[in-house]
Amino acid sequence: MILYKANIIFTREKDSFDIIENGYVAVDNGRVVGVSTDPGTWDRYDEIIDYGDRLLIPAMNDMHVHAPQYRNQAIAMDLELLPWLNNYTFPEEAKYASVEYAERMYRRFVHDLWRFGTMRTVAFATIHLESTRLLMNLFSEAGMGALVGKVDMDRNAIDALHESVIQAVAKNEALIAEWNDPNGLVRPIITPRFIPSCSPQMLRACGELAWRYRLPVQSHLSENASEIAWVRELEPESKNYGDAYDRYGLFGQTPTIMAHCVYTAGDELELMSHRNVMVAHCPTSNLNLSSGMAPIRTFLDKGVKVGLGSDISGGHDLSILRMMVYAIQVSKMYYSRDKSKRFLSLSEAFWLATKSAGSFFGRVGSFEPGYEFDALVIDDSDLNHDNYSLTNRLERFIYLGDDRHIVARYCRGREIPEPRVLD
Amino acid sequence: MILYKANIIFTREKDSFDIIENGYVAVDNGRVVGVSTDPGTWDRYDEIIDYGDRLLIPAMNDMHVHAPQYRNQAIAMDLELLPWLNNYTFPEEAKYASVEYAERMYRRFVHDLWRFGTMRTVAFATIHLESTRLLMNLFSEAGMGALVGKVDMDRNAIDALHESVIQAVAKNEALIAEWNDPNGLVRPIITPRFIPSCSPQMLRACGELAWRYRLPVQSHLSENASEIAWVRELEPESKNYGDAYDRYGLFGQTPTIMAHCVYTAGDELELMSHRNVMVAHCPTSNLNLSSGMAPIRTFLDKGVKVGLGSDISGGHDLSILRMMVYAIQVSKMYYSRDKSKRFLSLSEAFWLATKSAGSFFGRVGSFEPGYEFDALVIDDSDLNHDNYSLTNRLERFIYLGDDRHIVARYCRGREIPEPRVLD
Repeated sequence: MILYKANIIFTREKDSFDIIENGYVAVDNGRVVGVSTDPGTWDRYDEIIDYGDRLLIPAMNDMHVHAPQYRNQAIAMDLELLPWLNNYTFPEEAKYASVEYAERMYRRFVHDLWRFGTMRTVAFATIHLESTRLLMNLFSEAGMGALVGKVDMDRNAIDALHESVIQAVAKNEALIAEWNDPNGLVRPIITPRFIPSCSPQMLRACGELAWRYRLPVQSHLSENASEIAWVRELEPESKNYGDAYDRYGLFGQTPTIMAHCVYTAGDELELMSHRNVMVAHCPTSNLNLSSGMAPIRTFLDKGVKVGLGSDISGGHDLSILRMMVYAIQVSKMYYSRDKSKRFLSLSEAFWLATKSAGSFFGRVGSFEPGYEFDALVIDDSDLNHDNYSLTNRLERFIYLGDDRHIVARYCRGREIPEPRVLD
Repeated sequence: MILYKANIIFTREKDSFDIIENGYVAVDNGRVVGVSTDPGTWDRYDEIIDYGDRLLIPAMNDMHVHAPQYRNQAIAMDLELLPWLNNYTFPEEAKYASVEYAERMYRRFVHDLWRFGTMRTVAFATIHLESTRLLMNLFSEAGMGALVGKVDMDRNAIDALHESVIQAVAKNEALIAEWNDPNGLVRPIITPRFIPSCSPQMLRACGELAWRYRLPVQSHLSENASEIAWVRELEPESKNYGDAYDRYGLFGQTPTIMAHCVYTAGDELELMSHRNVMVAHCPTSNLNLSSGMAPIRTFLDKGVKVGLGSDISGGHDLSILRMMVYAIQVSKMYYSRDKSKRFLSLSEAFWLATKSAGSFFGRVGSFEPGYEFDALVIDDSDLNHDNYSLTNRLERFIYLGDDRHIVARYCRGREIPEPRVLD
């Protein structure tokens, strides 16, 4: 058993921080045993790792990101959705037919997640088997957790990104055979791109795969008005966009996470709540694509689980710390229009990014007993130039900090070294 | 004459970038002579400084920032405006009665402006003469441009921040006597805090000072609904908030910049346009304080000049690059609600931060002939890992870059070394 000593901050509940000044987290076999101000709490331990005056917080979780759009991060933000998809996104994803290209980019992508302290990721890959397997291997080699989706799609994109249902199923099954260890740090997730990209046959096949192998599901939901209208045309018998997934077994039959949910309300919201479908809230993406604002307070009031996602490259920033700031700001925009929608507090945003999001991976995102020890050590000495409280120090790190302040990263109790990139 | 060689990017007009790949900027006596791809354009020059594949862009201008709120940057963002002012802002400003405290904080503040490439600043100081003089000296020693306002206020704050009109005028005149060189890089700016903080006598005295010494004016305008209602109560004879300033000679009689203008419309907007009053748009502050969204597209359509401001500590981020991103995002939020309000393009946001803002200081913010050479050299090699165009490289720097990428800073033709901070 190892004791980590530092200023410990986490969120057992969303409305307040648990703060243990100069405290200890005891970790055994990758899991938290407990926290205390007194190392004598535990009869015996092997070692104390003393991080002094630094902060020790749960690591970040990115609940929605398109790994193959890494190269397009922060470019062409002036374009509207359709030219952006057709001129940038789809041609870029088609390049991942080359595993050499994929390796060059995916290594950088995993490295950047590491830089920003993201130890668990729910990622879209592409339709390509070899590149997707490579991405899973890179996460695994790095020691970082990930649910990686081979993307399934067979319509409304470009030929190079279409495949038959049979091909899609075969590729999924190949990856599942290799990776579906329920305790694995890296696992497959069934990933129909979204309703407009998938024929009914493809959606049905995805639902069957998820159920047969008890695998989680990810997709996009109710991101913008024209997309919702399109889904209504494509799936006229569905009561709403969420119901269209539900009819194919893709809406909570197994653990499900849906990105965006900007316009989710009414029956769709009820169904999400009932089926325990998680929202991946991507505030920078929503802003960059003029999508609108997801009603996070409403989700929380309804008991719908929410995590934060970078959504590269609709979003431009891989830092989940920055996503906390944006989530608060978007909620304040809501609040300025409707004072009954209280804006997100700092502890709520932190809880969304850590414990709430982490629940999709099991017991992740907190320092309560039994949680996997995913943690960041923060050296904020250059931000802490005056007599700041620990809460203020955390707030300043979240608002002002960057990768320079993260001096150690842990995933499942293991310190994660810097992943290698190619030239 | 010195030639600077690099990839040169600036905005003569707002709708497009001027890009000179592997080009030269010729600078003589601190001013741009011209740009060219051929050094033979100029008969003789003393030296070529070769920045290779780096980007060379105009430096940043911060058009609204409260220097004495530096210590409170990025804390207590969960508070509403009034408890935040009373518990954080006013007590902090009162500390600037101590010039020792001021020196410790102001040196860090100037250093951080430098880090983020801000070479010209329009700053609020406090009511204190000695601390304000110190701030002016620090800018001057650093070689960085600033309009620094001794804040004038005599009501509705706390006793420690109130002074008589006579005291206010005497302190202003002391600073004016020392600093009012029309060619000075650091100059005074007349700074009534805002209407609710200033009695009619104080406002009148401010207007008279501005006119007598031909000094610019800064204040706050139409930031939120309850503030506007309060001003209506305090100045019942004014047609609108802007008109309340106008009656005291504080609305364009001399060059004037007003922060926020979130709710400026109708007569107030007409008056701003007519009087050439500049808007300091502070998008992070507006988001953090739930103020609403300033209608920047409307301002541009009306020919009202706009610059960007960090508004520390209502805003949390000193980087004007980050303000460009936020300005675009806020304009997209507008656009998502009203498609007639086209969102800001990248070149427009860049132009706001450079040439448009810079016009408040004279010929600043562009590389056209006669402009003062305020420039940043950007080493984006770690962001430029693939075959990106120069526009994409600039966009990636704006969205993803930070102080690490800024490898040289120029103000008025002089390279600015890192300013010293105290421990």
